Amino acid sequence: MPRTHWEDFAPGQVTEYGPRVITREEIIAFAAEFDPQPMHLDEEAASASLLGGLAASGWHVCCILMRMISDGALEDTAFMGAPGIEEVQWLAPVRPGERLTVRATVLETRPSRSRPDMGFVKFHYELFGSGDRRLMTLIVMPMFGRRSAEAMAQGAPVRS
Amino acid sequence: MPRTHWEDFAPGQVTEYGPRVITREEIIAFAAEFDPQPMHLDEEAASASLLGGLAASGWHVCCILMRMISDGALEDTAFMGAPGIEEVQWLAPVRPGERLTVRATVLETRPSRSRPDMGFVKFHYELFGSGDRRLMTLIVMPMFGRRSAEAMAQGAPVRS
Repeated sequence: MPRTHWEDFAPGQVTEYGPRVITREEIIAFAAEFDPQPMHLDEEAASASLLGGLAASGWHVCCILMRMISDGALEDTAFMGAPGIEEVQWLAPVRPGERLTVRATVLETRPSRSRPDMGFVKFHYELFGSGDRRLMTLIVMPMFGRRSAEAMAQGAPVRS
Repeated sequence: MPRTHWEDFAPGQVTEYGPRVITREEIIAFAAEFDPQPMHLDEEAASASLLGGLAASGWHVCCILMRMISDGALEDTAFMGAPGIEEVQWLAPVRPGERLTVRATVLETRPSRSRPDMGFVKFHYELFGSGDRRLMTLIVMPMFGRRSAEAMAQGAPVRS
């Protein structure tokens, strides 16, 4: 049974994930599959681009952040996915060999109006690279199962 | 030399991309790498989830949309990347075998205030699946090189 439910989140909570190092090989492999722009594939073309050198696709960085969160937290939670993305800002190029860490801050929580068995938690994720350069921010509001609903479904008394 | 520049975009322009079929194998492979939630990996677990059956990671759908746009348009443009994502809505599950098409609508264009050699184009992307179900929307404002700047850099007279 999942350990963390919607009731366990509160505004201001901060969690950190990582580190994870991104390699040149994975930057190029991802770009070749999903975002084949020269600035993500080729050092020379990248030098002439706004990125000023080879850097990961912004979508790749989103996906790596998702994986870092998954490894760090989601396995033990009643995570139910998200209805969308509220905002992403790509602030600085993500270079080969960059050591990535994530800081997650809970901005707000609210119960679902249509589904009493779940609630929303709005997170502000910040991705940092080598030397603590801030590389990306993401605001997203995933859904989590409520402990109370799970307890009711099992005929147990509601705890909170 | 790229054929499409910032000057070539105007609000209301509509372009379509695809089709592309998404397979069960690629849904599972992507999820295993970047978004290893049971609802994207395992048919039985997915049936019990909000998705009601195996469905692609929302991040995977974003990445496929990026690739469809790349194949359809970006190769021949002065595309310079994007500073972020304004909004994504995941509206319906993306199933194995789904036939995907994209409709891109230009919402607005504006020159860069800090860099006269480029401008922004805000797009509303809609992703449709089999039976024209609308699966996802994305609002993003990439940057494109300006024809006038390129012409000036080459010492040629400015065309527009």
